[in-house]
Amino acid sequence: MTTTEAGTTAPSEHGHDHATHGYHKQKDEHLKRLRRIEGQIRGLQRMVDEDVYCIDILTQVSASTKALQSFALQLLEEHLRHCVADAAVKGGDEIEAKVEEATKAIARLLRT
Amino acid sequence: MTTTEAGTTAPSEHGHDHATHGYHKQKDEHLKRLRRIEGQIRGLQRMVDEDVYCIDILTQVSASTKALQSFALQLLEEHLRHCVADAAVKGGDEIEAKVEEATKAIARLLRT
Amino acid sequence: MTTTEAGTTAPSEHGHDHATHGYHKQKDEHLKRLRRIEGQIRGLQRMVDEDVYCIDILTQVSASTKALQSFALQLLEEHLRHCVADAAVKGGDEIEAKVEEATKAIARLLRT
Amino acid sequence: MTTTEAGTTAPSEHGHDHATHGYHKQKDEHLKRLRRIEGQIRGLQRMVDEDVYCIDILTQVSASTKALQSFALQLLEEHLRHCVADAAVKGGDEIEAKVEEATKAIARLLRT
Repeated sequence: MTTTEAGTTAPSEHGHDHATHGYHKQKDEHLKRLRRIEGQIRGLQRMVDEDVYCIDILTQVSASTKALQSFALQLLEEHLRHCVADAAVKGGDEIEAKVEEATKAIARLLRT
Repeated sequence: MTTTEAGTTAPSEHGHDHATHGYHKQKDEHLKRLRRIEGQIRGLQRMVDEDVYCIDILTQVSASTKALQSFALQLLEEHLRHCVADAAVKGGDEIEAKVEEATKAIARLLRT
Repeated sequence: MTTTEAGTTAPSEHGHDHATHGYHKQKDEHLKRLRRIEGQIRGLQRMVDEDVYCIDILTQVSASTKALQSFALQLLEEHLRHCVADAAVKGGDEIEAKVEEATKAIARLLRT
Repeated sequence: MTTTEAGTTAPSEHGHDHATHGYHKQKDEHLKRLRRIEGQIRGLQRMVDEDVYCIDILTQVSASTKALQSFALQLLEEHLRHCVADAAVKGGDEIEAKVEEATKAIARLLRT
């Protein structure tokens, strides 16, 4: 469903080759998590379709939101460990930009 | 995908026939919202698969979480308007149970 | 510190006399909770002043936020039990307005 | 109110002298923010004491929670910029521990 030919992805504007993206090594694990969340969302559709009691649907929404946030936290941890730490080691201004960018991403997660 | 024959759904344990479920009338709208969220989750899989930059994935996660919470809020509003209000009108102990149940559902949403 | 002479409070624009405000009976408990949260905020100032480690301060911020949300949930529960249920019993349009108002308050809590 | 004699603070177990704590330079700004939040919490006590309408109290709770989270985000940004970046530059195992610790702190903020 998400097949991509090798090389079709535009070169990253972030000055990384793919191998250094934080989450690269956990790719399979991430895809498995996301497919599970996709299944939860389809489960929600079934629940609405079958007129399941509102509160039971809300419980399932909470579970899906929690799963999305766990995914986000894992991604963020890998991002800090790789992209942010690499910028710190490299020195120069990049670390400032990386930290500001990460903080804004955390703020967006908090506000949802 | 989620076809159900009329009558296959077990009778609700909540003493409602389906017509009185809060969200019944907005069913199509709910299903449309959920299909859009399902599309967002598939988009996330594509992003991971194509090695998109971590921060851009996190932005999309925030959008999906926000969409799930909007869905939850709409469901909750209808639940308060119908199930909770009905219990209040009916009198007796049921309103206590309904309010406690709704508050617990809100607490679960807040904690995610 | 928050003494108010009897009668100085303007009559509520919500058509309730005070006795029917949802949280009236739990007033002492609420004030106790809030004083404890005030103590936590003063504790945060002390931590910053004494150069406590950032992560330990963040842990204390999470505890204070959690305490504020527990307070909000209790207030909300009483509001649903009294103000919203009363509006349902009274009949007419008021229930619509009350439910919309409560949902918006929940949305504000969720977004923080 | 939070006077501390120089030297009374135990040496940090985190291997930093105070000057390198992330938030050190913004200390005055942080204290000002926290005093403002303390004022909001006292305002909440006044509202409860004066039987203000539940929904208006909830709005003020949301404002206080938001202010606490902004404070947390600023602290976190400084922590990433200083403590985490320093660990990355230093090399060795410390960066792993720092990133894990920061991620756990973010998870606690998200869960409230």
